[in-house]
Amino acid sequence: MSFERKKVVVLGAGYAGLQTIAKLQKLVSAQDCDITLINKNEYHYEATWLHEASAGTRAYKDCLYPVASVLDASKVDFVAAEVTKINRDEKTVETTNGTFKFDILVVALGFESETFGIKGMKEHAFQIENINTARRISAHIEERFANYAQSTGKDDKDLAILVGGAGFTGIELLGELTERMPELCKKYGIDPSKVKMTCVEAAPKMLPMFSDKLVDYVVNYLEARGVEFKIATPIVAANENGFVVKNGEQEEQLYANTVIWAAGVRGSQLMEESFEGVKRGRIIVRDDLRIDGYDDIFVIGDCSAVMAGEGDNKRPLPTTAQIAMQQGEFTAKQIVKLLNNDKLDTFKYDDKGTVASLGSHDGVGVVFGKEITGKKAAFMKKVIDTRALFKIGGPGVAFKKGKFL
Amino acid sequence: MSFERKKVVVLGAGYAGLQTIAKLQKLVSAQDCDITLINKNEYHYEATWLHEASAGTRAYKDCLYPVASVLDASKVDFVAAEVTKINRDEKTVETTNGTFKFDILVVALGFESETFGIKGMKEHAFQIENINTARRISAHIEERFANYAQSTGKDDKDLAILVGGAGFTGIELLGELTERMPELCKKYGIDPSKVKMTCVEAAPKMLPMFSDKLVDYVVNYLEARGVEFKIATPIVAANENGFVVKNGEQEEQLYANTVIWAAGVRGSQLMEESFEGVKRGRIIVRDDLRIDGYDDIFVIGDCSAVMAGEGDNKRPLPTTAQIAMQQGEFTAKQIVKLLNNDKLDTFKYDDKGTVASLGSHDGVGVVFGKEITGKKAAFMKKVIDTRALFKIGGPGVAFKKGKFL
Repeated sequence: MSFERKKVVVLGAGYAGLQTIAKLQKLVSAQDCDITLINKNEYHYEATWLHEASAGTRAYKDCLYPVASVLDASKVDFVAAEVTKINRDEKTVETTNGTFKFDILVVALGFESETFGIKGMKEHAFQIENINTARRISAHIEERFANYAQSTGKDDKDLAILVGGAGFTGIELLGELTERMPELCKKYGIDPSKVKMTCVEAAPKMLPMFSDKLVDYVVNYLEARGVEFKIATPIVAANENGFVVKNGEQEEQLYANTVIWAAGVRGSQLMEESFEGVKRGRIIVRDDLRIDGYDDIFVIGDCSAVMAGEGDNKRPLPTTAQIAMQQGEFTAKQIVKLLNNDKLDTFKYDDKGTVASLGSHDGVGVVFGKEITGKKAAFMKKVIDTRALFKIGGPGVAFKKGKFL
Repeated sequence: MSFERKKVVVLGAGYAGLQTIAKLQKLVSAQDCDITLINKNEYHYEATWLHEASAGTRAYKDCLYPVASVLDASKVDFVAAEVTKINRDEKTVETTNGTFKFDILVVALGFESETFGIKGMKEHAFQIENINTARRISAHIEERFANYAQSTGKDDKDLAILVGGAGFTGIELLGELTERMPELCKKYGIDPSKVKMTCVEAAPKMLPMFSDKLVDYVVNYLEARGVEFKIATPIVAANENGFVVKNGEQEEQLYANTVIWAAGVRGSQLMEESFEGVKRGRIIVRDDLRIDGYDDIFVIGDCSAVMAGEGDNKRPLPTTAQIAMQQGEFTAKQIVKLLNNDKLDTFKYDDKGTVASLGSHDGVGVVFGKEITGKKAAFMKKVIDTRALFKIGGPGVAFKKGKFL
């Protein structure tokens, strides 16, 4: 029997991983265990705000805060490094900054963009993947508008933006873009009617999580602000001119100098390399969020698939910040139980609702079972966003980076 | 031994009483006990919004909702009646609509205005006491402005407002008044510089719960909008001309046709008539919120004095909606314990902070230990106000009456 302190290693400082740490460091004393947090960047960014950073309606710096500002340094070691390999049986994690042993591992490596093998999509479209890809999008849009303003042979494609996907991210991005356009046009002396925003969606229904009523609200809102929708229109390829889409039996080229893919995410690539039974970076977890065969490995956030429903209706819950944070809190408590050799609980997702923003003053959503639109939805979205900062970062971060108007 | 269901009677549908009911009806089944709620009015009003209804910045109807809309009618009987007598030993409550027996009683009769015996204050000043007194104030102010506009011999007193008290209520009222004035002046074609708002406070410090920094913020905000402060100035009397104040050794008459007393509250008069050891309508409760000698009587909200601190520093907690709601939730749980003959818990107040509004877009406060001002404070105030609706009234009430912008 060893009296060494158990090593708890958490991979990723997104909503799931950082929430685990924020909670765990409150529950344990420095004597209870060694805690190490490993994250690629020195900062945590709000992944649910990437549409704002991408459109340029919010400065990217206002979407992130230092991981260290959340940590109790007496209890948690922070390593800024990229995880390169998880050796599940050897119980080690290899990173760009050394190898770490673990007794208990929490894998919370988050999402990546998923292009479903669409030809040219990786090369020719911007991805909404992290704070850096988001920064690049807003800089690129501005650069195109500036170029249009100062060039003699005006290229209308400079003012055309193609968004692939009318899901949550695509719609929220379009909401921000419609807010950003008047400002950009004013700045560069561009006639707003020349701007062309087009959303292409393969599925026949957009925003599948919402009722037709809410979807109609969204469509009316965005169309009134210049967005054109091409629904039930699969994208066949992306190229230097824009998207090639399927229009009935024909293929059609859509032209734009800004092309954004906002239609798919998957869990981390590292998941397939580290575990078995992983699909699109997600692994089915047990009801205590551990994976089959490994009592010391939790997988949470966008890399985990929590199954809900009964029998044939059993499906994985969607990947959202809300569920990631609830998993983080839950996992912190389970780690304490593991350390004490107690029986683990069953994770129960408490769905408080979902709000999609349409710029900073409008939106749609379902909150506590009620459908809301307009300024109520916009307000609730700010409450949700600021609450997340508070839950993970505490009041200091919340009041510094929160959304209050 | 009797198998009759125990009778739980709750007096008052303010924050404390209605929160007790809202929680209790979730915790018990209809077979567990008979629950009766007795309240003077058919509606619950937001007592923390009275400054808005008084200034006229919010319609009084938007500050209230039907009590019945919160109740589970299968579990709770609602009686709209005024309580006239509590017979603590006979275990009955007399009302204007019959006498009710109780096995367990929750007294949550709320606050009344307290004029500390200042001569003429009851007769000549408006009180901020309930939704009806608030309605009257806003109607009166408007009527005075209308009178000024249409009268030939202009009486400057019509445009003068005196507010007694620079505590929470007085300051929040002034914040709303400064928001209301431009609108009123425009409506009646009155030069805004002719409006005179004066705040008189006996104590040397206003808003004693806040730091000097926050108080300075408030003073600057209100003075910039035309409020004159007379601090450390006791009011000797109120009369048909306004306040008589003590100015050094001299007495001075301050003139106004709108005179509002916002400096003191006390618990219900019925408290003194029903119990012993009651001071200004408040009775010291035990740490489980029951009163000495009566194991079946809880007193909560503004009629209760919860002692906090140690030894000589022991003082009653202030009376706020926050504490009233926490007491309500606690009491509901204790009633279940009483019904099950379980041991009762100790009430612990969790102070999440306090925000004073300055109109609808500014404010000051301390939230989770952080001082905030401006739009952050205004936002947090809306979150607090809407959360209270949600906690007691549920999402339907919250989205109907909540503050979202």
